[in-house]
Amino acid sequence: MTGTLYGVGVGPGDPELMTVKAWRLISTADVIAYLCANGKDSTARDIAKPFIAEGTTEIAIDMPMRVEREPGEAAYDKGAVEIAASLDAGKDVIMLCEGDPFFYGSFMYIFERLAAKYETIVVPGVTSITAAAAAIGQPLVARNDVLKVLPATLPEDKLHFELAMSQAVAIIKVGRHFGKVKLILAELGLLSKSTAIENATHENQKITAVENIEGDALPYFTTIIVRQ
Amino acid sequence: MTGTLYGVGVGPGDPELMTVKAWRLISTADVIAYLCANGKDSTARDIAKPFIAEGTTEIAIDMPMRVEREPGEAAYDKGAVEIAASLDAGKDVIMLCEGDPFFYGSFMYIFERLAAKYETIVVPGVTSITAAAAAIGQPLVARNDVLKVLPATLPEDKLHFELAMSQAVAIIKVGRHFGKVKLILAELGLLSKSTAIENATHENQKITAVENIEGDALPYFTTIIVRQ
Repeated sequence: MTGTLYGVGVGPGDPELMTVKAWRLISTADVIAYLCANGKDSTARDIAKPFIAEGTTEIAIDMPMRVEREPGEAAYDKGAVEIAASLDAGKDVIMLCEGDPFFYGSFMYIFERLAAKYETIVVPGVTSITAAAAAIGQPLVARNDVLKVLPATLPEDKLHFELAMSQAVAIIKVGRHFGKVKLILAELGLLSKSTAIENATHENQKITAVENIEGDALPYFTTIIVRQ
Repeated sequence: MTGTLYGVGVGPGDPELMTVKAWRLISTADVIAYLCANGKDSTARDIAKPFIAEGTTEIAIDMPMRVEREPGEAAYDKGAVEIAASLDAGKDVIMLCEGDPFFYGSFMYIFERLAAKYETIVVPGVTSITAAAAAIGQPLVARNDVLKVLPATLPEDKLHFELAMSQAVAIIKVGRHFGKVKLILAELGLLSKSTAIENATHENQKITAVENIEGDALPYFTTIIVRQ
């Protein structure tokens, strides 16, 4: 009997925003897995930390050069091999994922490699976009609104087009693309309607009106909410 | 000292998909509030039920004629007055909301009436759209995908336009609009790419390829995921 692979959303940052199911699976896990940078930093593990029991086996998938989280195929290959070894030994593996595993999550890369061969269950989590809306005390969408989620990594013309044709927007993965995003928001007259939420629900959460932000970069985990 | 109003997301259906924070707030609440239909049925209360302590005061906001959940302004007015009375008496009120309070939630209507006067905190929850993606074992969005969330209640031409110009789509609040939605999906050649998830993560969850569904209506809590 091979084990089951669980992709478990740990939510946006505050450990209390993890689901009861994630808490149960993580606290009773034999083996957990997560991405990390530089051999140590792992946002997903940091969030789950209060719930990880002593003696849990940990598979840390190290992403060298984690600029903008480009795939790093070799690292995912290596991680998938390690996870598969545990599954083959009959152990379940709980992969920790920031937010929700199927919402722009890096779980994708492990899922692509292993889901065809092993039973795989995804446990949804709270995403950064509704956490950001809660943080600023402003409804994200209501009634008949259309919501659009736009990765800031999109090319400038595509981002401009999508933003021009929208009602409620959450721009995610802002990071070093902030300068480009701010320029487009200004062109469309949307600056005064845009709020940046850095690290929503984390201890270092920061909320700023976009029109008051200088510079071309914000933390990777920044969401900009635009209401037209 | 007046109390604090909490809008608390209870997630998509499975009580275990409630956050640890929602569980803590609900299980220790003096007063909870929720919408119900016909004087009894409340999806939000059903989800939270395992966590509601005996002796908790309950404010049930009855929505008569709950067709498509049109506002029912009088019912919200009455509910807001009841909630305000508890807040004025110095008690916190925990309002239970399906999914996430600020993601197409009916919490909106209470928020509009009370947030200016009382301290109001929103606790985000797992939404039906990522729960639906987890249920079908298919990533909702990844990498540079644009995600669009479309209420099925939109007029036909608007829905057609938005669907034609999209990559990844979640259509929510399907209910009695299913006939219209299916027609548009057929016109755009998207039928074979669409999956309906009724009551995601509830006990009565049902997953069906849209091309295999007859009739013009599905349950209100149906999400259709379209991948182009």
